[in-house]
Amino acid sequence: MLRWNLALVGAVMLNPVALAQTAPPTAVESEPGKLMLMQGFPVPPAAQVRWDDQSMWDFPKTRWSFSHMRELLPTVAIHRGAPAKLFPRAERSGLDALRFATLDGRTMTWRESLDANYTDGIVVLHRGRIVYERYFGAFGPADQHIAMSVTKSFIGTLAETLIARGKLDPDRTAASYVPELAASGFGDATIRQLLDMRIGLDYTEDYNGMGTRMSDVTRMVIALGWRPRPAGYDGPDGGYAYAASLKKDGEHGGGFVYRTPISMALGWVLERITGKPLAQQIEQQFWSPMGMEQEANLSVDRMGTAFAGGGLSASLRDMARFGEMIRLGGRWQGREIVPPAAIAAIVKGGDPAAFANVNYPGLDGGNYGSQWWHRPGGQILALGVNGQGIYIDREAEMVIVRFASHPVAGNRANTPVTIPAYDAVATWLRANDGKR
Amino acid sequence: MLRWNLALVGAVMLNPVALAQTAPPTAVESEPGKLMLMQGFPVPPAAQVRWDDQSMWDFPKTRWSFSHMRELLPTVAIHRGAPAKLFPRAERSGLDALRFATLDGRTMTWRESLDANYTDGIVVLHRGRIVYERYFGAFGPADQHIAMSVTKSFIGTLAETLIARGKLDPDRTAASYVPELAASGFGDATIRQLLDMRIGLDYTEDYNGMGTRMSDVTRMVIALGWRPRPAGYDGPDGGYAYAASLKKDGEHGGGFVYRTPISMALGWVLERITGKPLAQQIEQQFWSPMGMEQEANLSVDRMGTAFAGGGLSASLRDMARFGEMIRLGGRWQGREIVPPAAIAAIVKGGDPAAFANVNYPGLDGGNYGSQWWHRPGGQILALGVNGQGIYIDREAEMVIVRFASHPVAGNRANTPVTIPAYDAVATWLRANDGKR
Repeated sequence: MLRWNLALVGAVMLNPVALAQTAPPTAVESEPGKLMLMQGFPVPPAAQVRWDDQSMWDFPKTRWSFSHMRELLPTVAIHRGAPAKLFPRAERSGLDALRFATLDGRTMTWRESLDANYTDGIVVLHRGRIVYERYFGAFGPADQHIAMSVTKSFIGTLAETLIARGKLDPDRTAASYVPELAASGFGDATIRQLLDMRIGLDYTEDYNGMGTRMSDVTRMVIALGWRPRPAGYDGPDGGYAYAASLKKDGEHGGGFVYRTPISMALGWVLERITGKPLAQQIEQQFWSPMGMEQEANLSVDRMGTAFAGGGLSASLRDMARFGEMIRLGGRWQGREIVPPAAIAAIVKGGDPAAFANVNYPGLDGGNYGSQWWHRPGGQILALGVNGQGIYIDREAEMVIVRFASHPVAGNRANTPVTIPAYDAVATWLRANDGKR
Repeated sequence: MLRWNLALVGAVMLNPVALAQTAPPTAVESEPGKLMLMQGFPVPPAAQVRWDDQSMWDFPKTRWSFSHMRELLPTVAIHRGAPAKLFPRAERSGLDALRFATLDGRTMTWRESLDANYTDGIVVLHRGRIVYERYFGAFGPADQHIAMSVTKSFIGTLAETLIARGKLDPDRTAASYVPELAASGFGDATIRQLLDMRIGLDYTEDYNGMGTRMSDVTRMVIALGWRPRPAGYDGPDGGYAYAASLKKDGEHGGGFVYRTPISMALGWVLERITGKPLAQQIEQQFWSPMGMEQEANLSVDRMGTAFAGGGLSASLRDMARFGEMIRLGGRWQGREIVPPAAIAAIVKGGDPAAFANVNYPGLDGGNYGSQWWHRPGGQILALGVNGQGIYIDREAEMVIVRFASHPVAGNRANTPVTIPAYDAVATWLRANDGKR
């Protein structure tokens, strides 16, 4: 069994062409325990998940690495404060059998959707109570899972808080806060344009090229230290230098185009004006006062700069606390965590016209603002590659947080299942309120 | 001021010859806040503390790095369990002015001794109450400081526990548990010989060569990932392979010779027989049941193996909990944490005859056993380079834990101050019991 499993890992890992041409292993087939990933003393080579050979970024090894980032990369702690108050629970066993139609015309159950999306952990809150919570693979309640670009929505929320408090002017340019950005594509962009990702920038968010050619994303993750530097590397040293190296392409204020370095530039502004590293800002605004259950952490580059575009790892329930706090208008257990004006800006969202040309299954007709995604129905989403997400449906009084290790980076691969699944849960909760 | 500070860092860092020829900056001069270490967005190059340029291991940058290991290296979490019960406090302000004579004939106060030893944090427990607790530099109560070889005493305590429970036979050889060690210098060594560091091994524990030539220690820390691999590296991949690569030199069972890889071989045995990684063993035996205040962590190599010889980082008070539990005979708040037979083995110590040729200021006439140091007066010590230590004086009902970033690795540089200082505190507490 071990031999077969290692052979599977080997076949998938060592032959990217085969991976591209055949369907990847299913969630059950790629279960990290079954593949014996990182098991043994020592771990056999084929089952090792490593930074130095870049295997940590390759599916199915991501099924282990995504919930073990600190064991592979340098990270800075985000401490929690006073002991956590646990969520009340009102679990609904009926949810598993709930059937719905995917956007691409399949029918599946809620339980099946979790495997379809390579879910590592999912929690559904209804009116602040946990109605559903499941963990899979290498991830458990005490672990921190990489949130990828869900991190950006924390940055946006920090920024809107500073705007609401008069510490950050959305109409000023990035360079007016961080002069080092003056010669970059960000220099003349306003903070609001950064928040809404309406930046003309010579950068393409293409994950397909990761590892095979020097795509923009590859260049970025090497600068960040997520991948080792190739011999003779003379590219940017760290996230700040990477952001400053990007050139303008087109005008700012046009259509929304999703670009991770925008959040990095924004993070730089936040650190410069507060004088506090992002980990400290997230700790002081969220982790410490909200009674989070677990520490969180941020991936840092070789000079200690946190990756504002996607470096946050946190527990599932703590992410749910954050989402629920946003749903509750910024308040948590009697305390104001995010000022009302900042929540209003987040809820308002970006300009739908700037999103008109975006083709995103389940998000069509929506918008992007303050580093959050919006569906036309008013739902607010934080999204990260490979299936990470916070989903806030205020009308349904529902918050869903999911961590995943989907083999495909782009969320277009899972939203055709995710979005109708979440809609079905919202409808079901409304219809079955109070039942078990 | 910033310029001067950076110049100081630069002068010390960029000119190792100058460092060797002149006295290093004092504790006050090397205070990391004063040097602006890791401050700024971005941090100026001279103030950066990095893994990739190895500056994290150079004094005075160690004054920051030693309490920020996870921000520089991959680490695995050691989770805590139920909320911590805080130590009762009975602070003694009189301690600061306590005067004592060092072993090399100087007179100084307790407070002066803390600077003399580049103390980052120190806590003194008397009868289970905190009578003194101070933090310096970049280290605070919520931070984890690298314990260096204090880690070994955790390994020894785990091993004695397994021996007491009949899971580990001290008379069996290392290779009988880990066949991969058969061809190494550890193969025919007994577990007891490993525990007492009486191993004939072609390895010299010399920190002076670190970074300048390929000393045994340098080779070890490259294998572990504490230093980057040089171009064309073909040495061992990780701690296990490094331990297995060492050859026998002389016979086992002779005199005590301090060698870090012995603890790595022992850690391998513990993982093999329990089927659990060391982090999990430390968590299950100590961190989870003892109500530790903070998470701890272990540095891991590129395949996730913890560094049993020195990779533990923990908070000051949690280290004090561990030391106090040993002092109390293995019990903590009504629970048995370490079985009485294991405590008896630790207290008994090693053979003083095997220690007869060891010249260690303050420890002369002592012994080494079960990965703990012993003074002839019965005090039990866990020691780590650059001034880390747990000091248990059972007769005085006193436990002292100190973290430090002394510029000299070997503890011979600080024990002439440390040991008489601790003796003076023990005498003072006895004489002033009940007073403030």
